[in-house]
Formats: sequence, C-alpha cells, structure tokens
Amino acid sequence: MKALRVAEQGLKLENMPIPSSEGESLVRVLFSGICNTDLEIVNGYAGFTGTIGHEFVGIVETSPDRPNLIGKRVVGEINAGCGRCELCMTGDPRHCPARTVLGIKGRDGAHAEYLTLPSRNLIAVPDQVPDRDAVFVEPFAAALGILERVSVDGDPRISIIGDGKLGLLCAIALAKRTGQVTLIGKHASKLDIATEFGVETKFVSELSDLESAFDIVIEASGSESGFATALDIIRPRGKIVLKSTFSGKPKWEVWRVVVDEITIVGSRCGRFEPALELMAKEKISFESLVTAEFPIEQGIAAMDKARVKGSLKVLLSF
Amino acid sequence: MKALRVAEQGLKLENMPIPSSEGESLVRVLFSGICNTDLEIVNGYAGFTGTIGHEFVGIVETSPDRPNLIGKRVVGEINAGCGRCELCMTGDPRHCPARTVLGIKGRDGAHAEYLTLPSRNLIAVPDQVPDRDAVFVEPFAAALGILERVSVDGDPRISIIGDGKLGLLCAIALAKRTGQVTLIGKHASKLDIATEFGVETKFVSELSDLESAFDIVIEASGSESGFATALDIIRPRGKIVLKSTFSGKPKWEVWRVVVDEITIVGSRCGRFEPALELMAKEKISFESLVTAEFPIEQGIAAMDKARVKGSLKVLLSF
Repeated sequence: MKALRVAEQGLKLENMPIPSSEGESLVRVLFSGICNTDLEIVNGYAGFTGTIGHEFVGIVETSPDRPNLIGKRVVGEINAGCGRCELCMTGDPRHCPARTVLGIKGRDGAHAEYLTLPSRNLIAVPDQVPDRDAVFVEPFAAALGILERVSVDGDPRISIIGDGKLGLLCAIALAKRTGQVTLIGKHASKLDIATEFGVETKFVSELSDLESAFDIVIEASGSESGFATALDIIRPRGKIVLKSTFSGKPKWEVWRVVVDEITIVGSRCGRFEPALELMAKEKISFESLVTAEFPIEQGIAAMDKARVKGSLKVLLSF
Repeated sequence: MKALRVAEQGLKLENMPIPSSEGESLVRVLFSGICNTDLEIVNGYAGFTGTIGHEFVGIVETSPDRPNLIGKRVVGEINAGCGRCELCMTGDPRHCPARTVLGIKGRDGAHAEYLTLPSRNLIAVPDQVPDRDAVFVEPFAAALGILERVSVDGDPRISIIGDGKLGLLCAIALAKRTGQVTLIGKHASKLDIATEFGVETKFVSELSDLESAFDIVIEASGSESGFATALDIIRPRGKIVLKSTFSGKPKWEVWRVVVDEITIVGSRCGRFEPALELMAKEKISFESLVTAEFPIEQGIAAMDKARVKGSLKVLLSF
C-alpha cells in the first residue's frame, strides 16, 4: 500500500505492506486530512518517524474484537492508551504515559491506504455526515476540547487568534456553544468563512483599541507573535488557551503573566463523540475549509500545497 | 529625608523632602525589605523611576481620614486603586487599570524615611508580631496569594522551585496550609531553613526520578531554567504557578504545555490581613531568612548585598 512517511531523510511516499492488526481493527482509509502538526513533524517536531497523518475517515476491514464494526464507516480517537493505567481505566487515554498516538508517537498514521487502531478507539459515523466532513472530526473535536479546559459559563468575551484552519475550527466550535466569539486574522477570505458561521471578525490591524478586551483568548496562530497579541488583548486574570503545537521555542514576557495574573491553559485533543453528535445534529459542513484534494499518489504535492501560505485543509483521497 | 531612588542614571541615595500626603496617610518607616523586584527595577524592569521599595513596617504620623491610625504601627497593601472602578468597589484594587503601586508604578516607595499611602491601604500590626517579622507581610501575603489562584483541596503534591527568599516564603506559606510540600533548590543552608518549617526538600540534582511527580509546581527561581524544570516535574494536566517577575524574555517549549495540557497560572500579590493573622496566630518568625540589616544611609551597600548570590532578605532600618 502507499503511505506518506517521514524518515531521517525527510518526507517520502513509500510502498509498504498492509499493516498486520495484532489484536487491533484494520481500517481502509477513504480520506485523510493534512494537519499543521504533520508539517511540524517533517520539521522535526516530536521526533516522530513513520507514516504521518491522524485525521481520517475509513471503512473497517477486519476487527478481532468488534466484528459488528466490519464494513462500517468510522473515525478514530488518535490516542491509544495502555488500557490498564488509572487514566485509561477512567476512559481517557489522552494522557496515558505509555500511549501511542496515530501518526505522531510510536504508531503509523493515516496518510496511508490502511491503518490499524484498537477497536475501542473507533466510532461509527452517522449516515448524515459525509466523508469529507467526517475527516474533520479529529480537529473539530480538538476545537471543542477547549470547553473541557475553560468554562464558558456567563457568556465570556472570547477571541481566537489565527484564521488558519485551526483558528477557524475553534471559532466555529465556540460559536456553536457561546455567544461572544471574535476571530482575529489577516485574510479577508478566511474571516469571511467564519462570518458564515456567525462569528464576529477583526483584522489584526484593528486590535489597537482591544487592549484587555477579552476574558478568554485562544492562541491558534502557531506563531510567536500570536502569543504576544494574546497578552495584549487579554484582561487581567483572563485565560489564554494554547491550541497550536509547533517545534519552535518562542520567547515570552513572563512578567506580564505574573503581574496581570493571567492563566495559560494548554489544550490538545477533544472527545470525538460529542463532536460527531454536534456535526450530525447541526448539519455542520466544513466544505468551505477545503482548499484542495489530492490522491495519495500525489501525497508529496499535497503536503507542499498544505504548506503554502493561505491554504486551509488539504485532503488526501484513497 | 533619605530615599533610595532609581533614575535614568541608575541607583542613588538622595535627600528628598518629606512627601506631602495629599489626602493620604503619612507613614514613618521603621524597616523596609529589599525584594528581587527592586533589583529588577534597577535593571529596567517596569520602567519605574523614583523611590523603590514596597515592603515596610512603619508608624502613622498623620492621617486625614483615619485619625485613629495615628501613632499605630502599620503595614500597607502596595496597590493603590482609583477607588471608583468595578474592581476597586469590590475591595480588590490589585488589578485596577489606573492603579499606582508602591515603589513599582507611579508612586514613590518604602526605601525612604517616610512614605504616603491611601489610608484604606494601611493595616495595624498585632502587638505580638515584631517589626522585623512585620516587614515580611507583603512577600508572605504574596506567597499565600498562590491559594487564591490554585486550589489545594485533596492534598495535592506540591513543589516549589527556587530556594531564594521568594521560594522559601512560598514553601513556608503552603506548608502551613497543606501537607505535601517539597522545596527544590541548590543550597543546603537554605533548604535547611525550609526543613525547620516542616517542608520536604530536594536538591535540583536529585530531580531525575521526579518526572511527572507533582500536581502543582511553583516557579519561584526567577530563572529560565526554573520554568524548564517545572515542565519536567509537572504531571500532565498539572498546574505551574509563576511567582517570579523578571525583566528577561525566556524561551519556552510551548508544545509541551499544549501536549500535556498544562495550566500556567500567574500569581502576584496576596491579601495582607490573612497573612498577618496567620503570622500572629502561629507566631511565625522569619528571622532565619534575614541575611543582613543596613541603616538607610548604607542603602547602596544594602542593595549590593541583596544582589550577592546566596543572600536572602536584606533589611533597611531607619
């Protein structure tokens, strides 16, 4: 099978054997989505080598322990815990210290014709969610995961910095759950997408009068300047949520966090089931976020396209 | 009167007129304490010029609105709010956007024979608290202020990084309120002080087996490596409290905060009254933290002494 892999020499499209499932379910991938984390991994983030990719929708081919899944269309939680530690036993393997993570840590990923995952990680996709939306479940769940980390009780003033795909998904997710959401970006065409979802928008250049204007700021730009902007617009004792993983080590003005008693909250993955339910119930379409679709044979070109400034989601089809 | 002042040319001991109170109480200072923030201000932190110092105990000489304070021994909350905004009206001027801060922002400070503060900022010191302990109220309140920012319900495993005066005060404050407190430092003589207060201690060199060992880590070292150490020993979804203000811009591995979903909490000032009450009730003596006492005439030498590696609290007497 064809697989998009990172090795010490860089990114390659390789022919690989179909993975043996070893007690896991085997999934034939229909679509996968390229995430900025994939691009960061090529840059050295997380020290991962192997098949990249962690956003997918596919069909279960074999399953040793959940045969009723065979033939079903599924998405999959990307953290595969040990199944035995305290965190796993409470149903949340996202911080299991022995976990592997699809296409990120110790486990081949989704930019390949087939992947395997523990059967408990797989969730059937409701019929009303099309393939090209289902492939967004992982990043949309991650966006909704913000709500596991900060409360939006009392209708706080929320802004999201960054109008890339992560920022857009965060804005869409939060606007579905609370009232005062502002997306801050640099690109009219991207801000327009958010507007369709009922999100207020601002250009970065319009921020001068927004000092201390927000109770919660989501940093989703993945840039050093994004965090500096967050410090400018957060109120004292406000909360900054960090969503972007990137391999750099930005400098930060620690004293501002202390003096204004800011809280900074890291947020990574979210739960798939509530994300899928919300997508099905509200018929959320992410088509406006798709920049391009490439067949896996053109995986390298797809990654190049994803890296181009201005690109939103680039999909791989199989 | 003599006053220790920072100007564009640097630190100077100057003769100044006794300040006119302009509606505020006039306090004759008995002792003031040199804080690392004073040293940072000389380095350019906060862009402050004027009389430095914000830790003091003194006698009220005049008070236009609280005459019963005259002759009383007092300490003083350092944030002077506008008295009219929402934060001030709820009794917490620490984040009033128009605030001045004693010896730090828009207001001459405590390393002088006299200072003025709004009368509402002054708190009488109980008789059983000696002068040389009372001068510790501000930093001890700041240490207790951690409990306003993170909950210690459930007896979490807490560590404090840095065995300087701030770290020691944080360790002492937390050990008075919860059970599992470990101070991490480099100096046996300083760690021994913490031991007297019932705090566990560890050398930085002993940290290799403490990965993910703590639920809450207090960064009180004021060094770039302190934050990196905090990331090494905090558990996933744990909380790092930042107590040190310093003028540098350290680099940080933002991705670790995201992946492990760490919460970072800035913590600055605390409330004086609970700190004073605790000190009186438990007869807490900070004498073991006093490195030296200098008369104000030797204020420059006192600052030099405070800057020496290994120094703890240096007091000025008047």
